[in-house]
Amino acid sequence: MDQNHLAFNLNPNVSVDCAVFGFDKGGLKVLLIERDNPDNTEGKNYQLPGDLIRNDENLDDAANRVLRELTNIDKLFLEQFAAFGDPQRVKRENDLEWLRSVRKDPEARVVTIGYYSLIKPENFKLAANSFARKAEWVNVKEVPELAFDHNQILTSALEALKLKMRTVPVGFELLPKKFTLHQLQSLYEAVLGTEIDKRNFRRKILGMKFIVPLDEKQKGVAHKPAQLFQFNKKNYNQNFSLAFDFQ
Amino acid sequence: MDQNHLAFNLNPNVSVDCAVFGFDKGGLKVLLIERDNPDNTEGKNYQLPGDLIRNDENLDDAANRVLRELTNIDKLFLEQFAAFGDPQRVKRENDLEWLRSVRKDPEARVVTIGYYSLIKPENFKLAANSFARKAEWVNVKEVPELAFDHNQILTSALEALKLKMRTVPVGFELLPKKFTLHQLQSLYEAVLGTEIDKRNFRRKILGMKFIVPLDEKQKGVAHKPAQLFQFNKKNYNQNFSLAFDFQ
Repeated sequence: MDQNHLAFNLNPNVSVDCAVFGFDKGGLKVLLIERDNPDNTEGKNYQLPGDLIRNDENLDDAANRVLRELTNIDKLFLEQFAAFGDPQRVKRENDLEWLRSVRKDPEARVVTIGYYSLIKPENFKLAANSFARKAEWVNVKEVPELAFDHNQILTSALEALKLKMRTVPVGFELLPKKFTLHQLQSLYEAVLGTEIDKRNFRRKILGMKFIVPLDEKQKGVAHKPAQLFQFNKKNYNQNFSLAFDFQ
Repeated sequence: MDQNHLAFNLNPNVSVDCAVFGFDKGGLKVLLIERDNPDNTEGKNYQLPGDLIRNDENLDDAANRVLRELTNIDKLFLEQFAAFGDPQRVKRENDLEWLRSVRKDPEARVVTIGYYSLIKPENFKLAANSFARKAEWVNVKEVPELAFDHNQILTSALEALKLKMRTVPVGFELLPKKFTLHQLQSLYEAVLGTEIDKRNFRRKILGMKFIVPLDEKQKGVAHKPAQLFQFNKKNYNQNFSLAFDFQ
């Protein structure tokens, strides 16, 4: 990405990196990009999409720009979850070699602000003018060694997403608007990385007044069509309370 | 703080800022420091404690250093909650004037990483070698206009603390080891900024198996001594589940 932007006034010390999560039948995926190594001898070299921030740009805008350039979609759901500032995080030799080929100040210390995003893989279309040689969805269980500290950033993003999904209803961005309880359970299982007892899941979900059954069933499926459900924001706002709310 | 550290290799673009919360009979307080303005004409000029990071230091260490220098206490409870990167955040004229008096590169854009901390005010002792003219506890409801974007950082820190306290049992750092339900309720009311119905509060808290009654009552109080309670971590780990846990 940096190569395309030498014209911009990039801050040498601050970047954003994005863990973009998607969900399909294959499970929970993350979007990785493959960087061009200077001499092409390194083979595959994956990283999370990210870039130095421009000096006239705030952090959220920088993260949004990175995702827009990658997906052609503007203003995706994006949540800042942590900053990463190990002084050694961009000092590995093969990372430095790449940085020397694309950055003005490759030796500079970089603190990066981590964001995660949730999108439906079928909505994703690699931008024609993309900076990356290639972008691909990789199952979170099969992520290879990444550049810099991106494995740590990804782990931390996944932990933040897990905590969020255990706390409040989030992740509906990853499902169709009308979904079956089986789809909802599969999403929780994929993100939380555990199997959930079907009866416990249904009992608890149906006790939540904001996941409401529709007068509608699946269409065009080979098996017995299942009931469809929808998330109801109004019911949620009226009914949901956290463990330490005392109304 | 910067004046004392010109010998160190400070990164011009990245800082940490700390919202240190304390709780006493007067309510929820935040620790503010008063900076010396170059010509002393500005009157009071409060800010959150913070500093540029050193180039050999990670973010948590920088935040810990700031608090250690201020309180003489090492390794306080510290939680990173957000990064702030508005390109204009250090560009107000009276802030620039101060920066010119203490920083090598006062015009540099600074992205700051926000931390919050919880401490008991009675444990706080201003360090003799403190960088600040004065540090003081200010009720969160009476915070004046602060330097830079520190009002925004404080608001955001308080929101992060509120969400955390609504979600999981946190904040016991601010209470005596053995506490009354009245003290616990006062803490929740002070942080959440709302009154709580006493009966609802007691019913819900006593239903939580990890806040356990002791065979002990308050001593040396004028009124009828109240039952003391303690937080039990083992019971918590065994019994607590979030809204979307499905065990």
